[in-house]
Amino acid sequence: MNSKFIVVEGLDGAGKTSAIEQVVASLHYHGINNLVFTREPGGTPLAEALRKLIKKAMEYEQITDRAELLMFYAARVQLVESIIKPALARGAWVIGDRHDLSSQAYQGGGRGIDKKLLKTLHDIVLKNFSPHLTLYLDLPAPMGLGRALAREKLDRIEVESLAFFNRTRARYQELAAADARIVTIDASRPLEQVSATIRSCFEQWLNAQETQQ
Amino acid sequence: MNSKFIVVEGLDGAGKTSAIEQVVASLHYHGINNLVFTREPGGTPLAEALRKLIKKAMEYEQITDRAELLMFYAARVQLVESIIKPALARGAWVIGDRHDLSSQAYQGGGRGIDKKLLKTLHDIVLKNFSPHLTLYLDLPAPMGLGRALAREKLDRIEVESLAFFNRTRARYQELAAADARIVTIDASRPLEQVSATIRSCFEQWLNAQETQQ
Repeated sequence: MNSKFIVVEGLDGAGKTSAIEQVVASLHYHGINNLVFTREPGGTPLAEALRKLIKKAMEYEQITDRAELLMFYAARVQLVESIIKPALARGAWVIGDRHDLSSQAYQGGGRGIDKKLLKTLHDIVLKNFSPHLTLYLDLPAPMGLGRALAREKLDRIEVESLAFFNRTRARYQELAAADARIVTIDASRPLEQVSATIRSCFEQWLNAQETQQ
Repeated sequence: MNSKFIVVEGLDGAGKTSAIEQVVASLHYHGINNLVFTREPGGTPLAEALRKLIKKAMEYEQITDRAELLMFYAARVQLVESIIKPALARGAWVIGDRHDLSSQAYQGGGRGIDKKLLKTLHDIVLKNFSPHLTLYLDLPAPMGLGRALAREKLDRIEVESLAFFNRTRARYQELAAADARIVTIDASRPLEQVSATIRSCFEQWLNAQETQQ
């Protein structure tokens, strides 16, 4: 089976870290051990510098939505070209903690940036590159926010209003419904149930891939 | 007369600093003293941080052309929205040391990034915002390079090959020929002649603007 790019998506607090553990356990179970992990924004020196800049810059000035978006895409294209594509080419599987869907949901849904602008930017910058499978962890915004708040200091993104996260979730749901390569997981249930669902969904997908080859 | 955004463009070593001095002298002569100066990339804390990152990042990794381009546009949209538009709105004139034409010429011509991608990025990011007048200082690439080399340490851009600068100049010429708001100045002549031409071209344009109002 050719190596694949698997992405875990969802609001902060949705349980992405646990989900990635389930994906890794399944891959190991199938004898797939050549794994590369990415998180966005970040993953190369330039992309990490941009990540810091996005989080820090609000201390100096109000960043315009479009500048923020372009920085996310600069970090993403650098990661895709210098890490993800070469990893896939040499047979490694890539597990992404967020990818393009985050920009579509947060910048598009949350910030209300024009859908057409986002679609165009995606098309011209990433061309036809997209994940083979995205696991979208869906949960109500207040629940995710509560978990994120309990866990850590707020950063630029997390400091947004509840309305922002409601809009972000709605866009996630809308995009997931329209794309067969995005699987929605109900992440509002207890962790062990969510983990079991992820495990079984992912195994099923993996078996289907094996059959196809 | 409404305030305007005037940009000086050209290869490094073309004489942009002297050209800006001529523009300022003309404006002062016409009693226009409320001036804001910008240079690109840069001009806000975020944009300056991006400028540094573009110049420094090559020490760590090979930056992809598209990542570099997106960083230039992130810096530009931040500058336009937070500095240039507010300055024009309060009646200040803005004098720009480089603007969008640099990306079109350097990234489009020099690096060979697809014209359509550049045009689309310009349209969706900057929308209809563009300078009222651009003075493009045209000179052969080896002449500009010689002057730039004599003056200062090379940075990321200046370290490119002569072929890169030849392509950049060719694109500058092509774009200038196609846009009535770009005036081409022969910058290969002695400085005093170039300055006199800039002064007379700019005065002529300024008088035309006054007549139109």
